[in-house]
Parts: sequence; structure tokens; C-alpha cells
Amino acid sequence: MKQNTMIIPTINDVLTASERIKPYINITPVLTNRSINDMFGSELFFKCENFQRVGAFKFRGATNAVLSLSEEEAKRGVATHSSGNHAQALALAAKNRGIKAYIVMPENSTKPKVAATTGYGAVVTFCRTTLQAREDTLEKVVARTGAVFIHPYKNPNVIAGAGTAALELINECKELDYIIAPVGGGGLLSGTLISASSLSPKTKVIAAEPKGADDAYRSWKEGKIIPSVNPNTIADGLLTSLGEINFEIIKKHVSEIITVSDESIIKAMRLVWERMKIIIEPSSATVLAVIMENQEKFAGSRIGLIISGGNVDLERLPWQM
Amino acid sequence: MKQNTMIIPTINDVLTASERIKPYINITPVLTNRSINDMFGSELFFKCENFQRVGAFKFRGATNAVLSLSEEEAKRGVATHSSGNHAQALALAAKNRGIKAYIVMPENSTKPKVAATTGYGAVVTFCRTTLQAREDTLEKVVARTGAVFIHPYKNPNVIAGAGTAALELINECKELDYIIAPVGGGGLLSGTLISASSLSPKTKVIAAEPKGADDAYRSWKEGKIIPSVNPNTIADGLLTSLGEINFEIIKKHVSEIITVSDESIIKAMRLVWERMKIIIEPSSATVLAVIMENQEKFAGSRIGLIISGGNVDLERLPWQM
Repeated sequence: MKQNTMIIPTINDVLTASERIKPYINITPVLTNRSINDMFGSELFFKCENFQRVGAFKFRGATNAVLSLSEEEAKRGVATHSSGNHAQALALAAKNRGIKAYIVMPENSTKPKVAATTGYGAVVTFCRTTLQAREDTLEKVVARTGAVFIHPYKNPNVIAGAGTAALELINECKELDYIIAPVGGGGLLSGTLISASSLSPKTKVIAAEPKGADDAYRSWKEGKIIPSVNPNTIADGLLTSLGEINFEIIKKHVSEIITVSDESIIKAMRLVWERMKIIIEPSSATVLAVIMENQEKFAGSRIGLIISGGNVDLERLPWQM
Repeated sequence: MKQNTMIIPTINDVLTASERIKPYINITPVLTNRSINDMFGSELFFKCENFQRVGAFKFRGATNAVLSLSEEEAKRGVATHSSGNHAQALALAAKNRGIKAYIVMPENSTKPKVAATTGYGAVVTFCRTTLQAREDTLEKVVARTGAVFIHPYKNPNVIAGAGTAALELINECKELDYIIAPVGGGGLLSGTLISASSLSPKTKVIAAEPKGADDAYRSWKEGKIIPSVNPNTIADGLLTSLGEINFEIIKKHVSEIITVSDESIIKAMRLVWERMKIIIEPSSATVLAVIMENQEKFAGSRIGLIISGGNVDLERLPWQM
């Protein structure tokens, strides 16, 4: 499934997205915590997208993409393949506009995820678990229904929507020295970069990536996309390979990509649960893990942390494995 | 250890407490959640004392009590016996005033709780696990040090401090039909009743109590205190018996005491974790369990829920037992 992916969104697209999605999204809070600040000797501002609808920032991009469709396109519905947060985000965004969503999910998707997706009224088609099977099945669904494919992170409207989280953070917290965002496919990071580079150019944006899925780090070092091969990390939201459009934006604006160990991710996640009493998923914990592993670098700084989501299997927590 | 417990605090004491403790406490947020509202057909406002310092409302009362001491009293320090949140709350409150805290803890207290208490600079004395041993040991500590005993829920300044949570809730959310607060010893409930009966007299205050520790329910029915005998519930913060001063206030102002099963408490706790992405302890979940078990009664109402705290053993969650 190809998509015109090289229309790079601008800050105006993010500002437009922000107005467009406002009636549907949660304006999520920015939380702070004294003991964690004391622990690291820096001032941390947690932008809590775990409190976003469907429990993740993904709802911003999906909503912006769905609302950007023409009437004619909207009638045909939207489609995607996803085993995770994007499935639910697109399903709810489509429901809010009163249009159909067709979601291709791998047959090993967990029951709660399938239930949540169908609960928002989406039509789910199961397929085998390979990427090839997912793409082939999606192609068939699109051919049959005429639905518009909304890619989880390469779609420009998805990127612009993702950038609204950093926009809100920057409007609320002035003079940040750094913003740290996780990187998987690069939707959240590239959106964050568009907002920060334009509205807060002195703020350095750093990407947090698990060592076990470090294709963004290697791509950035090499100056060309190096696809992810057998990624392995507890941060299951960051397993995907970087998109081309996302990489273009990242190359231009990112200050640094810092990799962190799964051990630090789990430690950071648990620290946030214990001290802040909020539920964040492993992918989100990467941003605090970056500070944990590089305490001196960040001492005395004001740092915005994009907490991407809070969807966790509560039956089996990472520190219990 | 006796304490003059029959000075019943008034709304003025709560208002004074609110000003006094403001520089030290977190003004906690009131959160709402669309899916939970839809689920129960009512409008719920969660007053999140799990985000309070030390993770529980207890810090309000402890801080008010410590700040209410005369200079002469303060020099002698404060003392209490507690295995739980009150120990840490009093330790931090004392630290903030720069005075000593002597905490008697049963020898089976968990390591993290002891570490947190000593981490705030408190002097911990261990004792056997019976109430008698705790009281005897405390008496010796007080005799030796001259420290002022701060009872976890009978102390009038503790009650007035606890009432500031409902005060903030009422100021933020107008025209609540109900406020539901958990009841154990009765500190939080009696403080809530003082605030609500005076500032929002049309709001009915309901107490939530676990079926397996229903001494408040039985006392309220009988019109006299019936001490707790072998209480057994997952809500470990609600095992203590009702205090006399607390009962006086409860008798006068409570609209109803509703008991709930541990099964409902665990279900409600998990629902909040999953949908709201916040960590609440079983004692806090009792208030939502009341709505869960009495959905029709509360349909269409605006309800404030006092979430008492978020201190949970993350190694072993209630639904994993």
C-alpha cells in the first residue's frame, strides 16, 4: 500500500490540526513531580498523552487524518493495519465522524485490543502475523471497500496531528532546554520536531530509542534509512521501522538520538508508577530512561517529556517477567 | 495513649487548615473520564489524593497537625504508631517544619514503607505487631522524648486537614448531588462531612466501606460504636476501627454508609487503572464500587469521589492474587 508520503507538513498544518481536533481530543495535563526532580537535579514536565482518548497520542493523528478527508472520501471510510493503539485510535476517530473504519489485525492480537477496536464500531479483518500478510490483506480490503488508507505514521495529517502534543506542551511550559520524545516509526518524533523547531527554536529535541530497536539511531548516524531487523525490546510500541517522510524531518531538526537499555526503561517506568501514580507504557518510559542514563548531561535543565501512552497488560507487568 | 479527642472541628478549622497547609501540599486535580461516565450513566469527579505528597490524603492532616503545634511543642517533636501512610505523612510534615518525628512501626512492616519513613528523616522504633505492643512502645517513646502524639484520625487538626480535600473539590465542582468517601478510622469521612455540610448542604455525603470491615456501617445502624473484630478486606487502609470523635461527626452528617464486596473493589480499581491510567489503592476503589453496585440509585447524578491514595504493592496486584 503506497501513500503519497513526501508532502512534509509545516507548522501551519500543526496549528490547523490543533484547532480541528480540539473538540474531540483531551487537552492532556502537564504533570511535575518534586521527588523525581530532586532525584535527577532537573526540572521535568511530563506531557501526559497516556490520558489521551484510547490511552495514547495516536488519537490526535488519527482524528486529524479522518477530519481532513473530503466528504466524498469520508463516505468510503478509512482503513489500516495495526495490532495496537493506531487501530483503536482510527476506529474511534471514524466513529466520531460517523464513517466506517476497516482494521486489519494480526490473528494473534490480544482479546482486549480486538474488543476495544470492534467496540468503537470498526470492521476487523484478521490476517496472518507477517507484515506481508498484513499489507496484502489491507490491499484487498481497500480494493473491495474503496476506503482511504491511513498509515499510522507516514501520513502527513497523522504527523501534523501528532505534533499538537508538543504544541500544547510548548504553549504551557516556556523556555524548555530540551524536549525528549520516543521514536519508533517516527510519527510522534517528526510532529514534535515540526512544532519545536518553529515555535521554540532554542529547545533541543532529543529522541529516545530502545537499544534493542535502534534503527532510528543507526539511520541517523549513517544518513540513510537502515531498516529494523528482528528488533527486541520491552517497548512494544517502538518496534516499527522509521518512515521516509519521518526520517526527512528527523534528519533536519533532531538534536540527538539517544538509545537506552530495557533495564533502564523498566526502572524508569516503575519509578513513574511509584512516584507519580500514573500508568505509562514501556515506550513512554524511554524518555525518562534517557535522563536516568545521562544524569549529568541534563542536570539543571528544564526538560519536556512526551509520555506517548498508557496501554499496558495489567496481568503481567515488565518487572514481574 | 489518650488524646483530647472531643474538640469537634468546625468549617473554620478546615478553612484555616487549607491556608496553613497550602505551601506544602499538592492542590490535587479533579479528573473525569468519558467512558466511565457513559458506563454508569452519571457524571463522576475524581478528587485525586493519590497525587498528594506521600501518595495519600494523610499528608494534609499530618501537615496541619504539625503546623498547629506551638514553638515549644514543636521543639519536642511528634510521634505516632503506624504501619502505613500516616507514618510517612507525619515524617515528611515534621521534616518540612524542621522538627523530629518518632514513628513506632510493627516489625512486619514492608521494607519500602520503612525506607520511605526513615528517608524523610524519622526515627523508627520497631515493635511487635499487636495494637497493645504498638501503644505501649509509643508510650515509652513519648515518655522518653516528650514528643507530641499525633493520632492518625482522632486528632482534631488531622480531621480539619483531611477536610481540605473535599473543600477543594466543592470549590471546583458546583452542585454535586453526592460526595462519596471511604471510611476506615473515619478521619477522611469526618473531615469531608464538615466541609460538605457547611459549604454544600444539598450534597449528600455517602461513606464507602468494605463488607469485610463494616464496623462503621454497623456502628451507624446501632447508634453506638461497635469495634472492628478480625476485619478482612483487600482494602488494607480501611481495617482500623472508627474513632469516637469521628463517629460523632458521622452520626450527625452522613447520609448513608454503603458496604461493598472485595470483588467489586478489585473490579473498580482495575477499571480506573485501565480507563483513567492512574494508580489508586484498593481503599480508594471502594467509592467507585459503591456506584458499580448501585448503578440505578446514582444514574443521572453528579458525584464527587474522594480518591484517598495510590500506595500499592506493584509486585502483586489484587487481580493477580
